[in-house]
Amino acid sequence: MALIVQKYGGTSVGNCERIKRVASRVATYRLRGDQVVVVVSAMSGVTDNLLKLSNEISQLPNEREMDVLLSTGEQVTIALLAMALHELEMPAVSLTGAQAGIVTDGVHTKAKIQNITPKKVHEMLDAGNVVIVAGFQGQTAKGQITTLGRGGSDLTAIALAAALKADLCQIYTDVDGVYTSDPRVVPNAKKINEVAYEEMLELASLGAKVMQARSVEFAQKFKVVFEVRSSLNNNPGTIVKAETKSMEDVVVRGVSLDKNQAKVTLVAVPDKPGMAARIFGALASASINVDMIVQNASHGAGAAATDLTFTVDKSELVKTRKVIESLQKEVLCREVLVDESIGKLSIVGVGMRTHSGVAAKLFETLASEKVNVEMISTSEIKISVVIRAAQAESASRAVHRAFLER
Amino acid sequence: MALIVQKYGGTSVGNCERIKRVASRVATYRLRGDQVVVVVSAMSGVTDNLLKLSNEISQLPNEREMDVLLSTGEQVTIALLAMALHELEMPAVSLTGAQAGIVTDGVHTKAKIQNITPKKVHEMLDAGNVVIVAGFQGQTAKGQITTLGRGGSDLTAIALAAALKADLCQIYTDVDGVYTSDPRVVPNAKKINEVAYEEMLELASLGAKVMQARSVEFAQKFKVVFEVRSSLNNNPGTIVKAETKSMEDVVVRGVSLDKNQAKVTLVAVPDKPGMAARIFGALASASINVDMIVQNASHGAGAAATDLTFTVDKSELVKTRKVIESLQKEVLCREVLVDESIGKLSIVGVGMRTHSGVAAKLFETLASEKVNVEMISTSEIKISVVIRAAQAESASRAVHRAFLER
Repeated sequence: MALIVQKYGGTSVGNCERIKRVASRVATYRLRGDQVVVVVSAMSGVTDNLLKLSNEISQLPNEREMDVLLSTGEQVTIALLAMALHELEMPAVSLTGAQAGIVTDGVHTKAKIQNITPKKVHEMLDAGNVVIVAGFQGQTAKGQITTLGRGGSDLTAIALAAALKADLCQIYTDVDGVYTSDPRVVPNAKKINEVAYEEMLELASLGAKVMQARSVEFAQKFKVVFEVRSSLNNNPGTIVKAETKSMEDVVVRGVSLDKNQAKVTLVAVPDKPGMAARIFGALASASINVDMIVQNASHGAGAAATDLTFTVDKSELVKTRKVIESLQKEVLCREVLVDESIGKLSIVGVGMRTHSGVAAKLFETLASEKVNVEMISTSEIKISVVIRAAQAESASRAVHRAFLER
Repeated sequence: MALIVQKYGGTSVGNCERIKRVASRVATYRLRGDQVVVVVSAMSGVTDNLLKLSNEISQLPNEREMDVLLSTGEQVTIALLAMALHELEMPAVSLTGAQAGIVTDGVHTKAKIQNITPKKVHEMLDAGNVVIVAGFQGQTAKGQITTLGRGGSDLTAIALAAALKADLCQIYTDVDGVYTSDPRVVPNAKKINEVAYEEMLELASLGAKVMQARSVEFAQKFKVVFEVRSSLNNNPGTIVKAETKSMEDVVVRGVSLDKNQAKVTLVAVPDKPGMAARIFGALASASINVDMIVQNASHGAGAAATDLTFTVDKSELVKTRKVIESLQKEVLCREVLVDESIGKLSIVGVGMRTHSGVAAKLFETLASEKVNVEMISTSEIKISVVIRAAQAESASRAVHRAFLER
């Protein structure tokens, strides 16, 4: 008998028919003798309706009250799923995040889980129930309702799996798992059977978008092995776990492409100490997430200026321009160039640590496709390049072919 | 500085505009220096939508889960009202029933309040906040979410007023208060300024329908003085409180009319001990609420049979017939007559205790209108008669004229 934590997202519980389908799947596991804890999100659309209501009342609603409001979404789903399980004559009880013992800090709308005391979950499991827990929510030690922010339900599932020492944690979504690349761009992309946390992190933050990085980090920290799989079929998904020796046999686990970034170049920034700190400090204060940073060669020997290039999400360009303008008196760069027609292509794999020549092979592949590399950034298990957006998709296919097809 | 508990029902908070209007009213009290605790219901329509969802999943949903589901309705309102107060720059915090310390028994969907520990309410009031509490809900000592059933939000308000030793409890509704009769039937009906709990109870259970009897009983038990008033204007409402000497000066406080009852007569029931117990026991087991009961004279001297007449709500007639049929082998009455064309007219007033001749005056008034009295039932502060439905409204006007207009 195994203890399984399953998580179903908003689309999987989007209406009553789908909730019934989730109940059937849960029942299958329970009937074969497993103990099952189910974490659910709000039904898709419900959260948007609540946001619309709050928007009618206030343009800048209080965050404590937003949490009181939004947490009702998951509470509706847990009750309905419990009822659906009862219809299958399956004992089931629902618990809010607070009732399940999920204690968070007091940072409303993006609280962090501090600890979980799953006493009630254990009691109810031991009494033979399927236990259904509202994802995305918890309470502070003082009993205030909190929500966990984006990807919160995944986090609830993984944190519960850790606290309960579950044998298995399944994250149900609308894709079959993690792919070697986006199948819409690279038709030859294949589902990955096993992936290391580090690889998943790089893939997640690079636009694979299956899961938020924070949930993967949490899983890594608490050594929770989990499986990403589809709620639409019974195919096995992708197992995410700690790196093993055999994983290093694969040099590149995946190729990802992010076309949502823009490149910002500050031309001829005075080349003196503290300048970069000033610029990126100001961007960070404005909560702008800077991804790649490259400082180019100085403008000729002994020149007192340098070019500074970085990438940000396109949605943050307006804010970025404002911050740079506000610095003009201090920074005094000659001009600011913005380029939105770029693609960021990355290859990821723990095997890179032990295999040499990966970068060279990447550059060769791109060169043979006549793709110019504009920026390069590397980490232990990742190489990213910025290239023209127009070439990004064909380049992805070529790189995938070179590293992942044979 | 007074401590005021205000309760607003589903219509008063039916959309965001109305919630803003409630916020303005609450702010007026707060700004004049009072401490304010606000109890709210779910926005009108919200509970129906939740019921519809549960109905799609299950015809007979589990009651524990119904409470988890339905309690989200009030939770949405408390958050939105808090936001609306913030827009008026008024500090405000929301609390669910559980957070407000409302502890109930474990009878889901119709839980009874066992005690209230309003520690958090006090803390938040002392910090200068308007405190907004979700009506209709609480939790068991073991932390299970419960709801209080019909009229639950009124009950929350009155119980909180008792626990907080509030100076004032205002129940806001869509009528100006309690009237001497239904103004749609009796155009001369006037708003009552003060009414005793007992009178309110008789008027409430007799179709005045302003409040459920259980809330009035709770107020009576814990000596909570409350005011029923309109959320649509600033008119003073009706104060409901313990009987005072001066109240006895008014013989009749109100005239009420209930046209939703039907009369059932069992003709020639064997006149032997235990027969009535058998019949009304069976009706009670089927949860049928019997109102008036009259056993008529026996069929002639020494006859072994008697007629038994009682009234039930029309909506329970089908169930009633079934129960009576199931008893036919034992009870063996000659026939069962059902009459749905009746009206039950009642006069209510604590003054009846000290004034004689009230019944005589009622019967004279009805006689002068050529109204035949078919059944009579009396209590210390009430006289009810069953008359023809067709005459019920004109009779109400005549009785109102005789007792309440001069």
